[in-house]
Amino acid sequence: MMRLIVFLLCFMLVGNLIAVQGQDKRLGKDYAKVASQIMGTALIEGQAYEKLEYLSDNIGNRLSGSTQLNQAIEWAVNAMKADGLENVRAEAAKVPHWVRGEESAEIITPAKHKLNILGLGGTIGTTSEGITAEVIVVRNFDELDKLGEQVKGKIVLYNSPMRKDLPTGQAYGEAVRYRGNGAIRAAKYGAVAALVRSVTTVSLNTPHTGAMRYQDDTPKIPAAAVTIENAELMQRLYVKGEKIIVKLKLGAQTLPDADSANVVGEIRGSEKPEEIILVSGHLDSWDVGTGSNDDGAGCVIAMEAVRTIARLKLRPKRTIRVVLFTNEEKGLFGSFAYRDTHKQNFDKHVAAIEADSGGTRPIGFSFKGSNSAFALVQEISTLLRNLRSDNVELSSGGVGADISVLTDAGVPGLGLRNNSSHYFDVHHTDADTFEKMDRTDLALNVATMAIMLYVLADMPQALPR
Amino acid sequence: MMRLIVFLLCFMLVGNLIAVQGQDKRLGKDYAKVASQIMGTALIEGQAYEKLEYLSDNIGNRLSGSTQLNQAIEWAVNAMKADGLENVRAEAAKVPHWVRGEESAEIITPAKHKLNILGLGGTIGTTSEGITAEVIVVRNFDELDKLGEQVKGKIVLYNSPMRKDLPTGQAYGEAVRYRGNGAIRAAKYGAVAALVRSVTTVSLNTPHTGAMRYQDDTPKIPAAAVTIENAELMQRLYVKGEKIIVKLKLGAQTLPDADSANVVGEIRGSEKPEEIILVSGHLDSWDVGTGSNDDGAGCVIAMEAVRTIARLKLRPKRTIRVVLFTNEEKGLFGSFAYRDTHKQNFDKHVAAIEADSGGTRPIGFSFKGSNSAFALVQEISTLLRNLRSDNVELSSGGVGADISVLTDAGVPGLGLRNNSSHYFDVHHTDADTFEKMDRTDLALNVATMAIMLYVLADMPQALPR
Repeated sequence: MMRLIVFLLCFMLVGNLIAVQGQDKRLGKDYAKVASQIMGTALIEGQAYEKLEYLSDNIGNRLSGSTQLNQAIEWAVNAMKADGLENVRAEAAKVPHWVRGEESAEIITPAKHKLNILGLGGTIGTTSEGITAEVIVVRNFDELDKLGEQVKGKIVLYNSPMRKDLPTGQAYGEAVRYRGNGAIRAAKYGAVAALVRSVTTVSLNTPHTGAMRYQDDTPKIPAAAVTIENAELMQRLYVKGEKIIVKLKLGAQTLPDADSANVVGEIRGSEKPEEIILVSGHLDSWDVGTGSNDDGAGCVIAMEAVRTIARLKLRPKRTIRVVLFTNEEKGLFGSFAYRDTHKQNFDKHVAAIEADSGGTRPIGFSFKGSNSAFALVQEISTLLRNLRSDNVELSSGGVGADISVLTDAGVPGLGLRNNSSHYFDVHHTDADTFEKMDRTDLALNVATMAIMLYVLADMPQALPR
Repeated sequence: MMRLIVFLLCFMLVGNLIAVQGQDKRLGKDYAKVASQIMGTALIEGQAYEKLEYLSDNIGNRLSGSTQLNQAIEWAVNAMKADGLENVRAEAAKVPHWVRGEESAEIITPAKHKLNILGLGGTIGTTSEGITAEVIVVRNFDELDKLGEQVKGKIVLYNSPMRKDLPTGQAYGEAVRYRGNGAIRAAKYGAVAALVRSVTTVSLNTPHTGAMRYQDDTPKIPAAAVTIENAELMQRLYVKGEKIIVKLKLGAQTLPDADSANVVGEIRGSEKPEEIILVSGHLDSWDVGTGSNDDGAGCVIAMEAVRTIARLKLRPKRTIRVVLFTNEEKGLFGSFAYRDTHKQNFDKHVAAIEADSGGTRPIGFSFKGSNSAFALVQEISTLLRNLRSDNVELSSGGVGADISVLTDAGVPGLGLRNNSSHYFDVHHTDADTFEKMDRTDLALNVATMAIMLYVLADMPQALPR
């Protein structure tokens, strides 16, 4: 009847379309049905958003040693029990207990400027009168080394920008050296304090804290982050030859180590319960913002991934163990405690996964392990092609700080990767808060994690080393 | 053992958390399990991305009357059959057949400037020598009316920007009046051609075509879109008092109406097969770009939503009918053909849904119907809370152009809503192409549509009018 009926097209085209599905890899094919169940449950019934809202808003930030971290540990224990996990427990760990106290800083010469600062984590305090000294601005350690003893008695400001032209992780890695080692390097030349430009490319006069180190053979000097705006102001004054005098007060103290705990829960394996697939985030945060991105998101992704599997009454061959580590931020003490408690059992840890890059759209996994293991992880990833989560990469590192004690012992490691283009905008700041979370993206992370986790725990052969 | 074990917190908190799930509305609760199945299938096994890639790249743009539209109709018929739909058919419709031909325009005075233009859909052509005439620039119809007969023998340029400070849909609605009626209004005063600033807020010298109208009692004059850049150039010259001469050639022709078709497929209802839930997109596009956003995305969302239900072998009480309309762009002729064929049956159309706002993240539905129907649609939407698709709004319009013949007859209508903040950037341009699609977002649209569709088709009582 219609002219176009005689066009005789397309039947083979539809055939081709169906053949191009990309799920022809074995594990991807074998686990398509259960992956679909997991995906549906995570997206329709998932509570990741509500969990993270509670952790962020009702508990708040969670520095090691703080009351809030202890509240978070209690909350996680109870939530895991309510989620139907087995063997839920808090495994003891001792953690550093540093407190910030009152802080302030201002330029008093050549003009009055209040500085927005955050003492770096672990810094010593100043006396209550503070330190008043001249500021020397350097772009990098080379410039510091050239100045040498000229910084004696001065405050060194490292104004080393986080580069926008590098991949985010690499840019962070290069800039964060000044935060980590700036105080040591400046103190060697006799500086009395160190200021560090915040490690971010974006700022609305926002200071970013983070960990810093001291060294036994070098004097300890106070160290604080300043904002991009404040660093650039001092840079401009310095270049013009102005003498810059800053008054810095830090009320920081280090108290005796505190009791803390890693929170652990499991779905015991049906056939090989002694073999463990570990999934993790870290429950502690800095004492600013609410640690919603770092690493509240990772914790709820791990918790909800396991809850999704439990809710479906799925019992894989191997045990799935969720571990929410304590005190990643101030030195991996939770991770070390886990190692001390479980190291005799590391050969039974088949894989370890960490979520510690926020809650934005999942883009895949980084992977550390053998090529034969990598090939299997790639097969699983075909299940996630509609989430663009199939870009698994073999990496020499970067699968997660907390699980490094496991990967260092040869356990294959995976890191959930997210679109992290804005991750460092709010990292370790007062702006790391809940409203930045996207409910859908968070649920997609849970599904991505749960599917990877379940297949690793249930596939016929354990992931090889 | 541990100090924190005595903190005695949180059990009630976990209880509260679970109570706050938001799925306590009846339909949301009753259909949670099947929604989960649909979601999982759409996300894990969905082929929306591949379907749209094929339609975009292997068929291309699909203007009414074109060979490509006929190819698309054939492809859709075959794809629906392969997807397991019933009663798949092409329902005949006559459509206008306008062809663009060769086009060019340039400013020849006061300086040579090539203009990037697209003839508006339905425009008459110029003679082969083109029209060479002075340009009068107006911001709006008021300015035109003030000039009146002064535009006689001239080309009128409407330089009315799409506003960035209004909601996207409203801004589009205000600016598009000049495209639709500009030629009529200018011709009344004796203008020889109309140029219209492209309806967009973003341009890299990109012209946007679209439909325009003529009126029987007014001379037909050629009409074309110019880019923001070209419109602003002419505005600047005009304000300086320069005489602007433009040469415009349009090779457009209107051929006799062509045969075309709406593509229809069904899942027949198990209990009330005569009651119909209609889901739609429009298969035609403009003759630029590949119509991936407008409305290739909507077509594959509708097709895949129904395929997802068919694949799960779900058979709801009512019939689900997918209709891919022909020729929305040049006057809703597919929609009118559907009305002519089915109007005796409109009382059995329980609801009509359209997807025609691209493939970006779904954000909910617009709804046109009674308050009692609205309340039920809201209940269903609780299933979609993790997709942020629960913001159903009662609207007086805006649920979809193709289904207006149904909503005008009292059928409750729904429009799938997307994050449309960038929808008009590429609308009706050569830049409406496949690489702008996000695989995950497209799959989320399919799931959102399929869940709404299935519950409407299966819920105990038909959606009331």
